[in-house]
Amino acid sequence: MVLDETTKKGLAAAVAEARKGLEQGGIPIGSSLMLGDEVIAAGHNQRVQKGSQILHGEMAAIEACGRRRDYGQVTLFTTLSPCMMCAGTIVQFGIPRVIVAENQNFGGNEEFLRSRGVEVTVLNDPECIEMMRGFIAAHPELWDEDIGD
Amino acid sequence: MVLDETTKKGLAAAVAEARKGLEQGGIPIGSSLMLGDEVIAAGHNQRVQKGSQILHGEMAAIEACGRRRDYGQVTLFTTLSPCMMCAGTIVQFGIPRVIVAENQNFGGNEEFLRSRGVEVTVLNDPECIEMMRGFIAAHPELWDEDIGD
Repeated sequence: MVLDETTKKGLAAAVAEARKGLEQGGIPIGSSLMLGDEVIAAGHNQRVQKGSQILHGEMAAIEACGRRRDYGQVTLFTTLSPCMMCAGTIVQFGIPRVIVAENQNFGGNEEFLRSRGVEVTVLNDPECIEMMRGFIAAHPELWDEDIGD
Repeated sequence: MVLDETTKKGLAAAVAEARKGLEQGGIPIGSSLMLGDEVIAAGHNQRVQKGSQILHGEMAAIEACGRRRDYGQVTLFTTLSPCMMCAGTIVQFGIPRVIVAENQNFGGNEEFLRSRGVEVTVLNDPECIEMMRGFIAAHPELWDEDIGD
């Protein structure tokens, strides 16, 4: 898939967050929010770093927006397909577009999102697939705790 | 509806959280988690207090559990019917039972929860209906920002 510059920028911001998480010993899932061609917020999974169950990458990026009211023009990027918490949150906040770097290591909520009117694009980004696969192989217990069940 | 002692206890803990929120100038929605007849965690909406968009009552109560792995025997109480973020979170964490104090001031996700196997009971508690109704009338802008659209 050939990506336009805006998509590359949003993806790069999400991947940078995932890498930050990995360097911190955390679960390497990152997310960014773009408005037009600007990254307005980003975040990564904080289970290990803050002992947080709810700060998945997407939640951390949304929380970083503060008390933003309008997500109607915002695109959410995530390095891994959203879990049901994050998918519900995307719908609740009215985020209309989600770019998923990969859904090979986790997925299943794309149809729920689409059924609620969210446009979902899956990039199948090889770097993200490999980063997550490597992490799951190295830390299966953290992965199971976070999302894997 | 005649409530058993365990239900009364869980509801009372959620209502106490909502009242705490109200006293702090926040949005009066509270939640508690019960395991058997013990309240294991509780929390209230933190939009005003912490500038948090994601710490609805239910999210705050779940977050207060720390890195708990198993919600299979937990019941979640909430003073107001869960929004789509909180409903998705309940499903993601595998919480099997939700007791909703009221869904007159907000509702709509009960069927989604049931479709995912969650047992949902709505109490129509007059105290909670009145507390939320009074808050919405007094602070419509905060309510719209939080959940109302």
